[in-house]
Amino acid sequence: MQHSAFIGRTSKVLRSYFPILEWGAKYTGKTFGNDMIVALIVTMMLIPQSLAYAILAGLPPEVGLYASMAPLLLYAIFGSSRALAVGPVAVASLMTAAAAGQIASQGTPEYLGGAIALAMVSGLLLLAMGFLKLGFLANFLSHPVIAGFITASGLQIAAGQLSPVLGIHAEGESFLDIVISLSRTIGHIHTATAAIGIGSLVFLFWVRSGLKPLLIRFGMSAKISDILVKIGPVIAIITTILIVAGLGLADKGVRIVGKVPGGLPKIAIPPLDMALWIKIIIPALLISIVGYVESISVALTLAAKKRQRVDPDQELIALGAANIGSAISGGFPVTGGFARSVVNFDAGAETPAAGAFTAAGIALTTMFLTPLLFFLPNATLAATIIVAVLSLVNFSALKHAWSFSKADFAAMAVTILITLIEGIEPGLIAGVALSIVLHLYSTSRPHIAIVGQIPGTTHFRNVKRYTVVTDPEILSLRIDESLFFPNARFIEEYINMEVSSNPDIRNVILECPAVNAIDLSALESLEAINLRLKDGGITFHLSEVKGPVMDSLKRSHFLEKLTGKVHLTQFNAVSSINPGLAQQTLNSQQAPIPGSTE
Amino acid sequence: MQHSAFIGRTSKVLRSYFPILEWGAKYTGKTFGNDMIVALIVTMMLIPQSLAYAILAGLPPEVGLYASMAPLLLYAIFGSSRALAVGPVAVASLMTAAAAGQIASQGTPEYLGGAIALAMVSGLLLLAMGFLKLGFLANFLSHPVIAGFITASGLQIAAGQLSPVLGIHAEGESFLDIVISLSRTIGHIHTATAAIGIGSLVFLFWVRSGLKPLLIRFGMSAKISDILVKIGPVIAIITTILIVAGLGLADKGVRIVGKVPGGLPKIAIPPLDMALWIKIIIPALLISIVGYVESISVALTLAAKKRQRVDPDQELIALGAANIGSAISGGFPVTGGFARSVVNFDAGAETPAAGAFTAAGIALTTMFLTPLLFFLPNATLAATIIVAVLSLVNFSALKHAWSFSKADFAAMAVTILITLIEGIEPGLIAGVALSIVLHLYSTSRPHIAIVGQIPGTTHFRNVKRYTVVTDPEILSLRIDESLFFPNARFIEEYINMEVSSNPDIRNVILECPAVNAIDLSALESLEAINLRLKDGGITFHLSEVKGPVMDSLKRSHFLEKLTGKVHLTQFNAVSSINPGLAQQTLNSQQAPIPGSTE
Repeated sequence: MQHSAFIGRTSKVLRSYFPILEWGAKYTGKTFGNDMIVALIVTMMLIPQSLAYAILAGLPPEVGLYASMAPLLLYAIFGSSRALAVGPVAVASLMTAAAAGQIASQGTPEYLGGAIALAMVSGLLLLAMGFLKLGFLANFLSHPVIAGFITASGLQIAAGQLSPVLGIHAEGESFLDIVISLSRTIGHIHTATAAIGIGSLVFLFWVRSGLKPLLIRFGMSAKISDILVKIGPVIAIITTILIVAGLGLADKGVRIVGKVPGGLPKIAIPPLDMALWIKIIIPALLISIVGYVESISVALTLAAKKRQRVDPDQELIALGAANIGSAISGGFPVTGGFARSVVNFDAGAETPAAGAFTAAGIALTTMFLTPLLFFLPNATLAATIIVAVLSLVNFSALKHAWSFSKADFAAMAVTILITLIEGIEPGLIAGVALSIVLHLYSTSRPHIAIVGQIPGTTHFRNVKRYTVVTDPEILSLRIDESLFFPNARFIEEYINMEVSSNPDIRNVILECPAVNAIDLSALESLEAINLRLKDGGITFHLSEVKGPVMDSLKRSHFLEKLTGKVHLTQFNAVSSINPGLAQQTLNSQQAPIPGSTE
Repeated sequence: MQHSAFIGRTSKVLRSYFPILEWGAKYTGKTFGNDMIVALIVTMMLIPQSLAYAILAGLPPEVGLYASMAPLLLYAIFGSSRALAVGPVAVASLMTAAAAGQIASQGTPEYLGGAIALAMVSGLLLLAMGFLKLGFLANFLSHPVIAGFITASGLQIAAGQLSPVLGIHAEGESFLDIVISLSRTIGHIHTATAAIGIGSLVFLFWVRSGLKPLLIRFGMSAKISDILVKIGPVIAIITTILIVAGLGLADKGVRIVGKVPGGLPKIAIPPLDMALWIKIIIPALLISIVGYVESISVALTLAAKKRQRVDPDQELIALGAANIGSAISGGFPVTGGFARSVVNFDAGAETPAAGAFTAAGIALTTMFLTPLLFFLPNATLAATIIVAVLSLVNFSALKHAWSFSKADFAAMAVTILITLIEGIEPGLIAGVALSIVLHLYSTSRPHIAIVGQIPGTTHFRNVKRYTVVTDPEILSLRIDESLFFPNARFIEEYINMEVSSNPDIRNVILECPAVNAIDLSALESLEAINLRLKDGGITFHLSEVKGPVMDSLKRSHFLEKLTGKVHLTQFNAVSSINPGLAQQTLNSQQAPIPGSTE
């Protein structure tokens, strides 16, 4: 009995760390056939993306293929989402380029080593966050900051890829740098390259906007049309390879991918270089968190469609494993991608096995098809990147934020501006810092209402909004916020101000129905308020204190020192001080109650 | 009419920026006599402190006197507290030494220039915070962090002053460094110095603990005894000057203050050296905030005794002016000191004029009495510092924090440890960072209760604590926290978990009586939850939404997209979905209601 219970528990723990045990046990031949078809589609979508994002990260194209094999396999084993597809993505590739660029110049072995180390450290950080349940750290990245960051990164990536599309030279660490650089070289466009690049761009934009309606008009289902649209880049690649090869454009200055080493990546644990790891720990942390936030959001959205469970801690572990896998097989940081996961889901991926089969598809490509990529023009890959990232750029979010909250707007606008001007790391760090400062600011001035009794009732409401009865000797304050360090001092100051300007006050009652928690700073502020009021000959009371807050107060000596009492209700509090007035107000004519509950 | 209203308004604004206009108008001859006596007492207390803290900051002793004149005068003009006494204090002096030590070595003109620049930048930052209403930035310094920091700083100061007390050489940037350094030189104690130093220490400790009861036994009032105790250091100084001069101990290796330049300080605006200012901006900000937090707390405590108003923004301006005044007259950073303010208050200071007269007293000392300080032994000053700072060391706060909240304990313990081991700036920064992380952590996992209807009532309570009726098709969740970015993702994940494990659910109701505010991140999470539930065939409702939160929601498109409705009460929400069950539960036998309101 006990023994089988032990086995049951062990098996449950095992299944929670290895979700593959859960779905693997129910795997059938039909699911297999289905997953194979999905894998074929996703492979066709991933090959151009893998090559393009490797080049975006400043790495040789084959590194993109390496980063699309082991991570998919490992996510299939550890991931809790059934449809998430992991691999190189645009923003993480840009962040990799920025971080590795601080280690060495592009093209050097140290640069590649830096990118691999980023994947390794990123993976270890994600694993640690998963095991230590530190996923909450991702909360530092508020929605406005991540939205602003992605919009600005998208612009920077698009601007950067204009240079291969037009065959000119431009570079820089931020959007602004790149635009300045572009403005200097824009006169030296390479005609043949630009023809291929702009042609690819026009074709890919048409595939996005024009092809789908056409396919639907020809009777194709919306879902299948969507999938076909997503493999549009493959058509652009095949066509431009044929053009370049046929017209001998490589000899006329069109830059091509050239020889891509075939064969599977060598498996090697990256050297433990502590000096390097410490240098990249902040960028690796930023890459991890940005990647995790995007990934979990995609996973939750897709899981909801089939009411499947996504385990946030397990996702950290799975992404950690995927990144370590990427590093060990010579790849760079990866995460769950939105577009590819949607294609995976829409194509009907039933289990993570589809991801494993996709990995196999990419492995076959790497082994046998790389010679075909020789004449692939860089301009085509750059065009696929531009089309992909421009969908990330969303300035309407700014308008939305402005109408909702000026603080959220400020966080988003500052993130966008600093990212565009200073680059991605300063932009992200400034955005995070500002959103924390604004959050503390907003909680530092909580809404405090002076309340009085509504005639004919035992209810107390804001004196500014209701006709209420008050006693000049009693100051009743309702605080609409939890009490913690961001607002502790404000309450001290507020009470000092009220008491110093109303010499009649003999009692202060703090009504706490909205106080969900209290920390040590606030407790010490309450103690200071109690002592100061006592020095001024004023009694201090609390009312409507919630259970968890009362439990906290009981763990301190505050209740022993409190000059007044803790009352169950505000009416009880006022009745205990001036029973006559409270009762008289209760019995008096009730004023018409406004509809609002304030 | 309009004209006089304008004058009235102008005069009110003027009085708010120049509190001196308020109390100056009512100044009488009696108040003058009173303030003069207070000034005499405080001057006697401040002279040893000013000299000692200048030496603690690594500066010549006269700089301490300079820092005690202009700041007192300027605070008298701008300060809103009637009793606060500003000048050099222990912790700010230590922070000055740490920051200036990063600019140059002690004794160089660059070091002095660095200390003056710290006062200048600190003053400008405080002024800016006052005018821009940025006082909330001081909230970043939670009580546990400031308490831990002051305890650790006190230990570091005391350890550092052991070397002049014993006549040995020891130095270091942290308590740990100093202790290691002391352990190496402890064998080389200079006997005559140690006799004076330890003698002063014993005397000063006795003054603190033994003298007061003795004076009271001889019929002196407690208040006057307290004041006499505070000027004990003057007695130690006079005695040891006489001993050193009489026995010619200076020639026998006892280190003395030596020639202190007499005369008033030269007034000079510090050079605008942007490179230097940027280098010291972080230490200057830390000094400003630590100083402000201590100062405002003292001001509020003393104001309460006479129900006087303290204006936090005006205090920032007054401390800013005091620091700029200190810089211009060749001094270093100052703030409101606890002990001197209490003496000032207890001696009966009625207006800030007492501070101005104290400044005059120190000016007279600087002009005429500095030759008397020639034989003052450094050991005596060090002893006065040790006695003063040991009262700052308070490890019982750790025990208090432990029993109240583990998070607050962790913030305090980490601040103490890192300050002791790494030094004051790393300690303070680590403490602030950790308390923000812990705060976000605690709000990142808000209390969420699944609720059900209590039979016989329209009330809904936690299913874990009450016998309640629930409908398997309805998931009712009450969230006990405002909705903002630290917890937005948690709620998404919580709902994903519940919905994926209960296939019967057709409706989710979020009960929001404790939601005081909502930010853009949380709004977007609600939108995502709404869409995901819709994909899963589930309707999403809200209930008991407060007015301000409803106003926020109305500024977005959320309410148009919401699949369900916003209900006034949770009972209304459930009734609209399953009227039969809600009504039947209401009519059924009421269960005995437990006393707790949960």
